[in-house]
Amino acid sequence: MTQPQSVGVVTPRTQRFTEPLPLKSGGCLDEYELVYETYGTLNADRSNAVLVCHALSGSHHVAGYYADAPERAGWWDNLVGPGKPLDTRKFFVIGVNNLGGCYGSTGPTSINPATGQPWGAAFPFVTVEDWVTSQARLADALGIKRFAAVVGGSLGGMQALSWTLQYPDRVAHAAVIAAAPRLSAENIAFNEVARQAILTDPEFHGGDYIAHGVVPERGLRLARMVGHITYLSDDAMAEKFGRSLRHGKQVFSYDAEFEIESYLRYQGKKFAGYFDANTYLLTTKALDYFDPAFEHGGNLPAALSRAQANFLVVSFSTDWRFPPERSHEIVEALLHNRRNVSYAEIDSAAGHDSFLLSDAIYHGVLSAYFDRIEVSGHD
Amino acid sequence: MTQPQSVGVVTPRTQRFTEPLPLKSGGCLDEYELVYETYGTLNADRSNAVLVCHALSGSHHVAGYYADAPERAGWWDNLVGPGKPLDTRKFFVIGVNNLGGCYGSTGPTSINPATGQPWGAAFPFVTVEDWVTSQARLADALGIKRFAAVVGGSLGGMQALSWTLQYPDRVAHAAVIAAAPRLSAENIAFNEVARQAILTDPEFHGGDYIAHGVVPERGLRLARMVGHITYLSDDAMAEKFGRSLRHGKQVFSYDAEFEIESYLRYQGKKFAGYFDANTYLLTTKALDYFDPAFEHGGNLPAALSRAQANFLVVSFSTDWRFPPERSHEIVEALLHNRRNVSYAEIDSAAGHDSFLLSDAIYHGVLSAYFDRIEVSGHD
Repeated sequence: MTQPQSVGVVTPRTQRFTEPLPLKSGGCLDEYELVYETYGTLNADRSNAVLVCHALSGSHHVAGYYADAPERAGWWDNLVGPGKPLDTRKFFVIGVNNLGGCYGSTGPTSINPATGQPWGAAFPFVTVEDWVTSQARLADALGIKRFAAVVGGSLGGMQALSWTLQYPDRVAHAAVIAAAPRLSAENIAFNEVARQAILTDPEFHGGDYIAHGVVPERGLRLARMVGHITYLSDDAMAEKFGRSLRHGKQVFSYDAEFEIESYLRYQGKKFAGYFDANTYLLTTKALDYFDPAFEHGGNLPAALSRAQANFLVVSFSTDWRFPPERSHEIVEALLHNRRNVSYAEIDSAAGHDSFLLSDAIYHGVLSAYFDRIEVSGHD
Repeated sequence: MTQPQSVGVVTPRTQRFTEPLPLKSGGCLDEYELVYETYGTLNADRSNAVLVCHALSGSHHVAGYYADAPERAGWWDNLVGPGKPLDTRKFFVIGVNNLGGCYGSTGPTSINPATGQPWGAAFPFVTVEDWVTSQARLADALGIKRFAAVVGGSLGGMQALSWTLQYPDRVAHAAVIAAAPRLSAENIAFNEVARQAILTDPEFHGGDYIAHGVVPERGLRLARMVGHITYLSDDAMAEKFGRSLRHGKQVFSYDAEFEIESYLRYQGKKFAGYFDANTYLLTTKALDYFDPAFEHGGNLPAALSRAQANFLVVSFSTDWRFPPERSHEIVEALLHNRRNVSYAEIDSAAGHDSFLLSDAIYHGVLSAYFDRIEVSGHD
């Protein structure tokens, strides 16, 4: 066994689409671009492609690094590469920035061809289903008829699940990690707090802040802070920060006094410096809307009856955003339909964020699953 | 057994104090007022007094109603009255608005005698310990040497606990309900999000919004929304709201679309209409600071060794703000000191808010405990 390696220097590419994309919201994008990265080599019969779908603040930059920014490794670099669970010696892995994003794919910061100005608030609502449709068009452009696997964590897991319903014959395996078949009321509540923080920021300007030369930074900071709390576990926070005081004593001020305050402010400020507020709003709405059972009267087994893929479902013990029970719903609905399902519940202290981390058992489960996937030209 | 009744029409009273109150923060209030209500009759030897301490957004209006507002019953009206668990035929019950509050006791909206203007941001930090000291002075003024019981839920429970440490010989019984011996990092994190929402509201004006004739309403709304999520359980939200859509279908808009969004916005807006932002900030800081073990190197049993009272500790199964484990810490530290402790863990779906509700088993536990408390002139 070789030591796991980085995929090395990567370069994003852009695919332009001119066929209009009708959206679930009733809107339509007449033309659009998707930015993506690939790692590994597509084999001769194009049977080794794996699509990685990203979560709320993720991007197409899944693995490797850019020549001019060697410190910025992809968000799932620990998972994708030669000798890693998603082994790029075997698989051709694709990362794509979702429509409505702010990392290069067409989104609210792009120029609206109808006006010559940034889309801003005029960018249409996009859904998980729309993302999957656009990803399928990217697969068409790359000549990929069927994915060896579609993989994602959190919102990315919802996309993997939706792939199996929208294109059942184009997905051999789906890995649905730290996800849920739909948000709970509490999940929606947290998203709504984040949205209200942005929407009520005086610098939001109804979503057209770019035209005003400002950014709703206060709102974005708050949104990220509250989101961040839900990504961690109570235990992880206690372990990492506890009640540690920055000055060793209470100083009676509204400055950051406890380490946890300092950490959250830092995370919020950093995020507000690079993420687009409209993308944040759109993405939280996509999360809220995702509910494949909705059109089946809430019956999840009926909704998942279309799926033909083999499934790996993974949850984490301290994830209270999408607890193991939410994964059980998916597993049970799939078993009801006699699908092949492997399920792993990983004992991890890190909460929802666990899906991004390098836990040995978690990665072992993924390795075992992906090693088993058969692709031609590879033994 | 008679049917439980309301204490009927009540009238708040005000007690003025002219002896300066040194504060834990190093500040001092030269003079101040506390507004309070009483229910029942103080017996001849003044042995039947029960102090009820309030939580974050509570007040002195614990039971009964005002002649001009019969619909606004006190926040613990289900608990306090003739034939209720805190039976006013037996006990003389006192509710007091905490210093720094916004319901009549001296606080940020009061006039600062030094300037003739509202205190605003200049109001000093107050702590749980300061509140207890001021409450003890109120007891002095009312001629009460020793309370039959000090009772509170959530932050009110922290005050009850602190009473037993600051004035061990003045508390016969303490009821510490849905509380914790100190906040966790996650608890502080949620408070910090709420504070940042207020502090970064452009209408906060450094805390002197009254002088500017405005209110940081956006910040207060967000603070209440995020707080409210932590008061409910995931299950309670699922039961009450689930994924119910206000229009029966997805309408792709940032208006309130799910019922839970509508509910949270309503709660936030209502709260911002009556609660003072500086009081909110001060109170969340008092929560963060409370930590009787801090001066004992984190050793809670050592911190509680001063307590002489008998204790009733109550927690609720779905309370994830202050879960049962946090009450266990209190119980174990008290048992280590060989104190008398009754502990009840109530199976309730309502989360942290359970302490305000009329669950039959919960109220039965309180009734049984308070019935047992001996006061003279009552059999």
